[in-house]
This record gives sequence, structure tokens and C-alpha cells, in this order.
Amino acid sequence: MSAFTIEARDARSRARVGTLHTAHGTVRTPAFVPLASTATVKGLLPEEVAALGYEMVLGNTFHLLLRPGEELIERMGGLHRFMGWGGAIVTDSGGFQLFSMGHGTVAEEIKGRNRRAGRDRAGTGAIVAIEEEGVRFRAYTDGRERFLSPEGSMQVQAALGSDLVLALDECTPLHVDRSYTARSTERTHRWLERCVRWQRRHGREGRLFYGIVQGGVYEDLRRESAQFVADSGCEGVAIGGSLGAEKAQMYEVVEFAMRELEGERAIMPRHLLGIGEVDDLIRGVELGIDTFDCAIPTRLGRHGTALIGDPARRWRLDLTKRAFREERAPISERCPCPACANGLSRAYLSHLARARELTGMRLLSAHNLAFTATVVRRLREAIRTGSLPAEAAALRAGWEE
Amino acid sequence: MSAFTIEARDARSRARVGTLHTAHGTVRTPAFVPLASTATVKGLLPEEVAALGYEMVLGNTFHLLLRPGEELIERMGGLHRFMGWGGAIVTDSGGFQLFSMGHGTVAEEIKGRNRRAGRDRAGTGAIVAIEEEGVRFRAYTDGRERFLSPEGSMQVQAALGSDLVLALDECTPLHVDRSYTARSTERTHRWLERCVRWQRRHGREGRLFYGIVQGGVYEDLRRESAQFVADSGCEGVAIGGSLGAEKAQMYEVVEFAMRELEGERAIMPRHLLGIGEVDDLIRGVELGIDTFDCAIPTRLGRHGTALIGDPARRWRLDLTKRAFREERAPISERCPCPACANGLSRAYLSHLARARELTGMRLLSAHNLAFTATVVRRLREAIRTGSLPAEAAALRAGWEE
Repeated sequence: MSAFTIEARDARSRARVGTLHTAHGTVRTPAFVPLASTATVKGLLPEEVAALGYEMVLGNTFHLLLRPGEELIERMGGLHRFMGWGGAIVTDSGGFQLFSMGHGTVAEEIKGRNRRAGRDRAGTGAIVAIEEEGVRFRAYTDGRERFLSPEGSMQVQAALGSDLVLALDECTPLHVDRSYTARSTERTHRWLERCVRWQRRHGREGRLFYGIVQGGVYEDLRRESAQFVADSGCEGVAIGGSLGAEKAQMYEVVEFAMRELEGERAIMPRHLLGIGEVDDLIRGVELGIDTFDCAIPTRLGRHGTALIGDPARRWRLDLTKRAFREERAPISERCPCPACANGLSRAYLSHLARARELTGMRLLSAHNLAFTATVVRRLREAIRTGSLPAEAAALRAGWEE
Repeated sequence: MSAFTIEARDARSRARVGTLHTAHGTVRTPAFVPLASTATVKGLLPEEVAALGYEMVLGNTFHLLLRPGEELIERMGGLHRFMGWGGAIVTDSGGFQLFSMGHGTVAEEIKGRNRRAGRDRAGTGAIVAIEEEGVRFRAYTDGRERFLSPEGSMQVQAALGSDLVLALDECTPLHVDRSYTARSTERTHRWLERCVRWQRRHGREGRLFYGIVQGGVYEDLRRESAQFVADSGCEGVAIGGSLGAEKAQMYEVVEFAMRELEGERAIMPRHLLGIGEVDDLIRGVELGIDTFDCAIPTRLGRHGTALIGDPARRWRLDLTKRAFREERAPISERCPCPACANGLSRAYLSHLARARELTGMRLLSAHNLAFTATVVRRLREAIRTGSLPAEAAALRAGWEE
């Protein structure tokens, strides 16, 4: 049986509904994948994440190899058992974290903060060197120099017991030129070939393996990269790297890659790395993306922002604002999350957010994941019933909470 | 009906089992009362606190009047509704927070840090003046000068909708002399009389009111204060202030007060403020205490420490230590908390604690409250079955996790 089955397609876009079959259950797609970077969806328990409708979470190779270490997790029975999560786990390769450390994050670049390039957020780690063999870096945990090769990343992900592993890539930043991006993308392809060889030799039955498309914002590089990845021998394609400085460009860059994933290649599952705002989910699904991961729902929740069906507010309610101090309504009347289902007022959540209370971080993280699950479920159902254009328009127009 | 009914007594100590009848249900005593200082038991939801066996939580007048303000909470339907807690709520008067701000905390004193006296922990607030009329202080939230009188504290607690209110007291610190303690205790008594008058005029049927015994570590002052509070017209007696520099002295100081709460006065419920370690709960129950509150279970949980049945470790497992990195066992095989019931390993909790993850803070807070609930339930059952001496000895000896 193929690891990915497509069950319905939208007539007017590349959107499709499918099922990803993993060693830890199925994932109905399109799906959003919450981050469990450090072996926990921050603030939530596994059964709560599952109850919100999630079937897969994303563990972070880079963070977990530094703390507590993949060998420890392996000795403890693997990441599923370690964190008590019975569903599927995808692990990223570590590329994004390594290179956002080395180059500064895409968000920082867009905000003009790329002077921080070369230092990680804590200021204690840095890329030492990108070599053909792999990446030399300084660990943020203990300051020691470490080395991660493509094969090393695969080994770490295997030790974690991941159901879906990603090839090590250089996440090329926005501020580098075309020439650097081209050379970097070629190196990412050579790394992918090494990962494919590793996977053929050591891969475990049922462990899915995706390559990552790079190529910056350049159409030819993105198209070449998508072709290369699709034909490399992996089961799925992830789209990573700099997707541009604004949303219109991001959609365009994703489209460059998707054009090469038509025809026979369309049976491969496609993941869009690090993207998860409402409008991006809608457009991503239309562009043919099957799975998404993003820090936004949980990160915003920890910082006092609730996601709501209001595009005019960029889908966000910043509950730390005084305006919400006395609002008796819950965030949403129809949301199944614990805060909304228990009728906790925006006033109360605003109080918790302003006081930086753990309970508030936890409740808003759960709300934002419930919200995101609802958006993705609506898209999934609309594709199945042939009503995606209307549903996408309805979602884009927003709804009453 | 009396607000407190005593159902069984231990033959060899002052321990008793009873029921406190509040406007929001009954509280079986001896009981531990988790802190919900800022309108939340940090990291936990109300239904989780109730599921652990708790029937009352403690709200903090001082914190809540500053943020979000008692008037807002009143407009939102009271503290129970605001935070979604259907059980009983006791509110302290604000005295402890005001005076730990003014004098430095007892813990800081004991550790020789009383130079911090005059500044709160954030360094942004301070006692401006203790006047006969009340306390002038600077708010840590906005730096503005505020004033809290005994009547003001009662008003705030009424606005919160508290089921059990405490009279404003000066929490006399350990480092002051006998003469200051005597004068301070007398002022606390005059404040209590004003609270009693306020309560007679404005008190609501079913809202319980406790005075607070002060008197420092001085036997005569403690005894006088206990007499004064017991005969002041309040329904219950709380014991507050400096209880000494070590546990033996603390028990002695509590004993001074309890000696005056015999005979007819023994029908009054007794609360011990801010105390909640295992050995203190056992001794406190033997001394005749009915209810306890303490930050320790939740605060330790947030800092990576789990409570366990091992007196040799001071009942504490500091999971941030490397020794626990690979322990496969849960904290306790028999604990009903989510971490133990789901079999999450000490290794995993140690990882979360070292990474300062919200999920770890939440899981350890719940574990520590489950642990404390178990200790108190065992004491309650032992008193009822006439086996307190054996059970207290068994608890003190510790048990296998």
C-alpha cells in the first residue's frame, strides 16, 4: 500500500483530500501539524492535542539532539513513548534551526534585524562552518562545538523513532544573492542524495522520508529543486527556505515548486514547512499542500493572542490589550477548546494574559490549536463535497465568533 | 446551622475531622487549600483542581485588587464566575503581601536576606507607611500610591464574592523586637475590631469571617492574641505572622495559640496561614489545625521539584538534577495525577523541568497537589477511624513510591 492515498480532488485547484499512512496511525490531509519541538506541545498534554483533532505532531531534531539527546530518548523507548504521544510524529532535519542560527531567522530578516545573523536568540550558539560534509555549530546548551551531517540527521531522526523524517537542508535566507542560493541549493541536493542512500541502507519499513525543496525566491531554482527532490527517491516533498518577503511572493514561490509536482509526481504528499496562518492555510491547500506545521498557534497563545475568524484583525485578538478587560463573551461561542467550552470570558483570559499566567498560556494555546484544526477540517470537508471555492471564500471573509 | 461541624476527634491530640459549610459547598477538614492568588491555580484548570480532591482555593486580595481590580471582578459576576471555580474560595486580607513587601518575607529573613526589606521582589513597590488607619503602599503594577484599610480589605473581599474572608493584619516579621511585635499585635487587634464592625454591618449571610492571630514568637503575645481573636465575634481563627526560624519553634508558636482555643472556643475552625510541607501538615493536624494554605506544592512544581513520600529527601525530588535523566519510573506508581497515571517517566519530567517547559510546570504542579491531597486525606481518614498516631508515624516514616 502506498503511504499516501488521495481520496478526493478539487476541480478548480490542486487541492486534494488524502490519508497519510504512518507507523503510528493515519493522518487525514490537509492537516495542520502542531509543534512539539522539545518533546511537548508547549503547555498541553498528548491526550488534549489528540482531542483537538490532531493526528501528527512535529518534533525538532536540532533541539532534541542537544537536549535531552537522541540516544537518551532511544534508550527510553523512542520519542512517542518518552512524551506519551501515540499518534504520528514528523521530525524536521535540524536544517532550519541550524541556519536560522547561522543566518538569523526569516522573520528577523523581514523585520530588518539580520544584523543578528551569526548568533542564535540566546546569543550563545553559532554556525561555525558549513562544509560539504555537513554543518559545524556551537550548541546553545553547553557551548560545545558539534557537527551534523546529512547522515547524522537521519540517524538522529531514526533514534527518535520518527514516523516521517526530513532530509537535512540548508535553509537559504532571503538576504543572500542568487549565486549563493544556487550553490546552496545544489549542496542541499547533494545532501539529499546522501540521505536517500542512508535511508535505503538503514531506513525502517513504514518510516516515511521527505526531501526538502530549496531555491529561494528564484523560479528556475525552485522548479529545478522541486524536480530534483521529487525524483530523488523519497516518498514526499517538503517546501522550505525563504518563501519571500510577503505573502503574495510566498504563494508565488510555492506555486513555482507545485508546478513541477503535477502528473505522476502528484501522488507524492507535500508538506509546507513553517507556515500556518489562516489565509496561508487556505491558499496552501488550493496550491496543493497536504500538511503544514507552524509555531504560530502555540507561540501566539503563549503571548496572549487568540486566533479568531476576523480577517480584518489578521485573525488575531491580542488579549493583553485593555480593550478586552471587560468583555464577558468567550473568545468564540462555537469553539470546542476548554476556555470557550467552559465559557471563560475574554476578560478573564485578558487578565491571565496580562499577568503572564501559565494557565492563560495553556488555554490560549489550546484555543489556537482548536481554531486551526477547525479551519483545516472545514477545508478538508469542502474538498470532499466539491465546495472548496465557496468554503475558501467564506473562510477568507471571516465569521462571527 | 453552624458553619463548622466537628465529626470526630482524635483521642490523643487536638486533631479533629469536620466540615466547613460555605456558600459554595462544603470543605472536609483537615483540608489543604491550594493557592489561586491571581484568580488561577497556576497552570491548572478548575475542574482539574476539583478532580484532585480540592473543595476550596485561596484568592489573594492584594494581587487581585491591583490586577485586574476587585470592581472589575465584581462586575464580571464575582471571582467564582470569573475564574470558573464552583467550589469554595477563601481570600486572604492582603496583610501578608503588604508586609512581606514592607519587611521582606519570612523566608528571606530566615535566609538572612532581610536587607531587601522595604522593597518587593520586583523592586517596584514598597510600604510607604503603616498608619493607625491602614497601610499606604506603592503598587507593583503601576507604581502608584494606594491605601488599604481594614474596612477596605473587607470591601475588596466582599466585592470578590469570597466565601471566607480574613481580617486585615500586620504580619509582623521575625527580625523586629518584642516591643514592636506587641504594639503591632495590638494594632492588628484594633483592625480586627473594625473588621468585625464592618462585617456586622455589611457581611452577607453565609460569608465566613476569620480573624488572624499574631504575636510573633512570644508566648504571652500569642496567647493574648488567640484569646482576643477567638472572642472578637468572628467565626474562625487563622494563625499568621512569624512562626519562628525553624520548625520546632513553629510548632511551639502554634501550640501557644492552640492552648487558648480549647473548651468552648474549640468549636471554631482554625486555619494555619502559609504552611503546607508534609511534616507541618501532620504536626499541624495534631495541634488542631483544620485548614492550611501554602504556595509550596505549586511553586515547587513550577521549579522542577516533585513531592514524594521520602522524609530523608525532605519529601522532594529535584527533577532538574542529572540523576533523574534516565529514570524510567513515574514519580509515583500510585499517584492519580496525570503524569503518574499516564506513566510519564521521571526522565521525561526531568527533561521538561530542565528545559523550563510549561507542560512540566503544569504536570509537576498537579502531581504536588495530588500528593498533598493524599497526605491530608490519609490524616482525615485516620482521625475518623481512631488511628491517627499510627498513620502519622507511617506518614513521617515515608513510603515507597
